[in-house]
Amino acid sequence: MTRSARYVGDRTFVVGDTEPAPPGPGQVRIDVAYTGICGTDLHIMHGAMDHRVSMPAVIGHEMSGRIAEIGPGVEGHAVGDPVTVMPLDWCGQCPACQAGHTHICHRLNFVGIDSTGSMQSSWTVPARILVPLPRDLPLDQAALIEPTAVAVHDVRRSRLTAGEHAVVIGAGPVGLLIAKVAQSTGATVTVLELDAHRRAVAAQLGLATVDPAAVDVAAHVRQQTGDAGAAVVFEVSGSAAGVRLATDLLAVRGRLVMVAIHPAPREVDLHRFFWRELEMIGVRVYQRDDYDEAVRLVHGRQVPADRLISRVVPLDDVAQAFGALEAGGDVKVLVACGGGGGEG
Amino acid sequence: MTRSARYVGDRTFVVGDTEPAPPGPGQVRIDVAYTGICGTDLHIMHGAMDHRVSMPAVIGHEMSGRIAEIGPGVEGHAVGDPVTVMPLDWCGQCPACQAGHTHICHRLNFVGIDSTGSMQSSWTVPARILVPLPRDLPLDQAALIEPTAVAVHDVRRSRLTAGEHAVVIGAGPVGLLIAKVAQSTGATVTVLELDAHRRAVAAQLGLATVDPAAVDVAAHVRQQTGDAGAAVVFEVSGSAAGVRLATDLLAVRGRLVMVAIHPAPREVDLHRFFWRELEMIGVRVYQRDDYDEAVRLVHGRQVPADRLISRVVPLDDVAQAFGALEAGGDVKVLVACGGGGGEG
Ligand SMILES: [Zn+2]
Ligand SMILES: [Zn+2]
Ligand SMILES: [Zn+2]
Ligand SMILES: [Zn+2]
Repeated sequence: MTRSARYVGDRTFVVGDTEPAPPGPGQVRIDVAYTGICGTDLHIMHGAMDHRVSMPAVIGHEMSGRIAEIGPGVEGHAVGDPVTVMPLDWCGQCPACQAGHTHICHRLNFVGIDSTGSMQSSWTVPARILVPLPRDLPLDQAALIEPTAVAVHDVRRSRLTAGEHAVVIGAGPVGLLIAKVAQSTGATVTVLELDAHRRAVAAQLGLATVDPAAVDVAAHVRQQTGDAGAAVVFEVSGSAAGVRLATDLLAVRGRLVMVAIHPAPREVDLHRFFWRELEMIGVRVYQRDDYDEAVRLVHGRQVPADRLISRVVPLDDVAQAFGALEAGGDVKVLVACGGGGGEG
Repeated sequence: MTRSARYVGDRTFVVGDTEPAPPGPGQVRIDVAYTGICGTDLHIMHGAMDHRVSMPAVIGHEMSGRIAEIGPGVEGHAVGDPVTVMPLDWCGQCPACQAGHTHICHRLNFVGIDSTGSMQSSWTVPARILVPLPRDLPLDQAALIEPTAVAVHDVRRSRLTAGEHAVVIGAGPVGLLIAKVAQSTGATVTVLELDAHRRAVAAQLGLATVDPAAVDVAAHVRQQTGDAGAAVVFEVSGSAAGVRLATDLLAVRGRLVMVAIHPAPREVDLHRFFWRELEMIGVRVYQRDDYDEAVRLVHGRQVPADRLISRVVPLDDVAQAFGALEAGGDVKVLVACGGGGGEG
């Protein structure tokens, strides 16, 4: 049987059993080992995306597992292979797809939001979204490849290079991953975070941290950069103050990467964009290259995924997993989904 | 004698004679043929930049003329050579200069604002700011090379390429120049302008125009681009509505070039930057490559400078020139400065 957690609205998940779905042509069935919970999943639980999910909904898109069954016509995969997925399915026809930007397809299906996700022991998906994993990568760590791919994409879009200085505003899971990926390029990195616990977590990961409530951050960054300012700022806080600070910190020709989602319009200091020829860069999910780099960074431990996992909760206790994430204090919470063997 | 127009504050210019300044080492003296008036000059006349100009101030930076006298140590120039200037003087020492972005020097001297300009019959400048002109380029047209270089810089920063679609919001002199430079790259261009007279001027220059008050511009642009949206939008209106419209018009990975100066922070739809991976690009003046391209485009008539000059006023009537520009209706107003011979 497949055990799954189904979101039924009103902040509620129901855990129960169903028949596993056998893989059709071009599909595989995966025994799911772990599914990470992210801010989007929390939004869904809060009801903020009820217009987009079809209830009862199995959500979840940060996953790892092993191939359990292979449908007709699937090549290049074998039962037992460790895998994650890149949870994007695009139309191939719209102007964005035609221009090669398939990850921003006008009719993008985000698997785990717009269609069934991985918070279940057994999951049947199109083989085209599979990403193979190194055999020696523990499956709990592999569940962090999806958010790492987000960070890789954001750093790639920033054009950050070795020797440059980057500032990350906000040290939640995405901010920490961006900071570690930025470090892996050879850049120096400063992480700004108001919360003392989050600053401590960042420091334990080898990141320089600053409390923006206690320090004149602009002066600090000027001092760190020979009066130039930061080459790149990643805005991950989602706050008006973060947007304002970002433009103040940037060097001439600096790049502001807008990682956090700001639902309402924000005031932006456009004069500063003129005066210093700044750039603002929007970012959304990832492309396949980003996934390959994310696998490399997690496998090579430049991104220490094990140290970012703060809690692992069994599927039957999914409500507790969401509750912990909601309470703050955790970095990455994984749901152990019961498939994929015990070594991960 | 040198005849000059001096800004003395309180919207007032005083025209009078002084001794010409002989060129020192590394300098040349130019007989000035024409000086164009731009929005910045108008701001100065309105008193908005009194903190930056040293009164009495000879302003003006869009100029053409002929070399009249050459100081010690100047090579590669001869008396009688037609020239314009790139009116930027940088420190060479600051982080921006060290990074090669000399046009955004932290201590930039904008010649004609921060130091003496060209609204006089005879002007002594460092030879390093000279830009030689083709001998067959009429000097009135050559006075438009500086604003054309602004447009070239803005289009270069946009990475606009042949076959892409660009929208220009605002059809003042800078917007028209950007639209013509954008056309010269092989892009298709739509100009949005509320004012019927300005739309007519744009149409006479061979530009497709739309009245954004009468047409659903987003639908129009989608229809023009096979539902994709514009690859590039140049915001030249300086209005909140222009900023709002720009983000609505852009395709996936579209670039918003912020040409107009917005002194106060503006609300920006950051969600759209995420959703379509948009970019916003700040732009400021120009670099030497932009000047060389501007000379080529004016000389080659891809930028029809003669058709943009709506009025030429003698130096003694400088107040009338500013008044005309202020009243609207004009495109480019030149002040004939009395130097440089009569053929231009
Ligand atoms: Zn996620
Ligand atoms: Zn598509
Ligand atoms: Zn100007
Ligand atoms: Zn400098």
